[in-house]
Amino acid sequence: MKIYAVGIGSGSKDGITYEAVKTIENSSVIVGYDKYVELIGDLKKDKKIYTSGMRQEKDRCQKAIDLALSGETVAVVCSGDAGVYGMAGLICELAEGFPELDIETVPGVTAAASAAAKLGAPLMHDFAVISLSDLMTPWETIEKRIRAAAEADFVICFYNPSSRKRADYLKKACTYMLEYKSPSTMCGWVRNIGRDGEEKGICTLAELTDFQADMFTTVIVGNSTTKVINGRLVTPRGYDIR
Amino acid sequence: MKIYAVGIGSGSKDGITYEAVKTIENSSVIVGYDKYVELIGDLKKDKKIYTSGMRQEKDRCQKAIDLALSGETVAVVCSGDAGVYGMAGLICELAEGFPELDIETVPGVTAAASAAAKLGAPLMHDFAVISLSDLMTPWETIEKRIRAAAEADFVICFYNPSSRKRADYLKKACTYMLEYKSPSTMCGWVRNIGRDGEEKGICTLAELTDFQADMFTTVIVGNSTTKVINGRLVTPRGYDIR
Repeated sequence: MKIYAVGIGSGSKDGITYEAVKTIENSSVIVGYDKYVELIGDLKKDKKIYTSGMRQEKDRCQKAIDLALSGETVAVVCSGDAGVYGMAGLICELAEGFPELDIETVPGVTAAASAAAKLGAPLMHDFAVISLSDLMTPWETIEKRIRAAAEADFVICFYNPSSRKRADYLKKACTYMLEYKSPSTMCGWVRNIGRDGEEKGICTLAELTDFQADMFTTVIVGNSTTKVINGRLVTPRGYDIR
Repeated sequence: MKIYAVGIGSGSKDGITYEAVKTIENSSVIVGYDKYVELIGDLKKDKKIYTSGMRQEKDRCQKAIDLALSGETVAVVCSGDAGVYGMAGLICELAEGFPELDIETVPGVTAAASAAAKLGAPLMHDFAVISLSDLMTPWETIEKRIRAAAEADFVICFYNPSSRKRADYLKKACTYMLEYKSPSTMCGWVRNIGRDGEEKGICTLAELTDFQADMFTTVIVGNSTTKVINGRLVTPRGYDIR
């Protein structure tokens, strides 16, 4: 009667925590998006597996709840952190009628942190995390948050910056940010973090406007002090380094 | 000639990633705040160790650079994620004159994610991370960011919400947020995450105003949709769960 929402990190084999591995090992069933279940490799050996495709989140969480209610110990695996735009919340919502169900989140390294590490150290100061997916959030809300974060000089990390149907969303976000942030603001992006085909780049906010992200890209836009030091994107914390 | 800035997670033994453990194992020297170096237990066996106390960050990072330049492989350990208000940025800044020095960040689970996991699933939607420490940031900047994040209905996670000299900073932050957010906004806090004496609580924003945080507390303030389901703090992502 237990469900774990388990974050497995960004995708490299070693980016997972010991706690996540132990949790998966001690579970009887693994539930997840098929591509993420692939990522856990041998950990799934000898387990019952329930996978489904993109946008089947509700179906997977409901299945996990049904399995747990039938006595299984269920690990729902998510890339990054299960608690950041992951499955942890949906499980809690769908299980509202079953207060006896034990639900626990096992956190992981979310894409903002993995991308920041690849780029240098851009998250050394206050930052905002914004998803550009408007599948479940009105664009007006997203626009308001981008403008607020830009005006208050947050470092901003964008999840889901693009997809086939939303190819120009990052460009729109850049247009808003350029009303408050300098075009020379330093930015970075990482694609396929920790997986085959990993790529990254550092550019200005003006250049980011014409960058074509895809759904496997994480984008970080610096604050007014973010700079490039020896090829690394760094937001100073404010130490007097003289 | 290599420095790794290594995030070891929130403090529980199993919250560390495999990558972080391997990195520490392959290093010849470990540098860190003495309390964090204690947390890695046996991993420090047979290593050279350089520790110092609170507020000695610059000293530690400079020492790490000197050691790396002398040929050592250095792991600078940080709690949570070395890239979120951690040592990664200061190392890059102080090493500006040594472009030959190889600096790499090994990310970890930051306190926002660990605290969220303990509370339920409050970070399911856009969120802002703000440090309430004004040691190196003007309070006006902090105030502006709190107001911007509150007005745009971000979930907000506060790091360093209090210290002996700044006992009333969280109260001040709550006062600003109450200009934009309802007093019934659901919030949560976790103290000593993953360590001895771990405590947590869920309360309203009105109640949070009178909560006395300490420097080992992480505070999460929900957005307008955040609610409590079976004792868990949950921010709905927007799925139609009927």
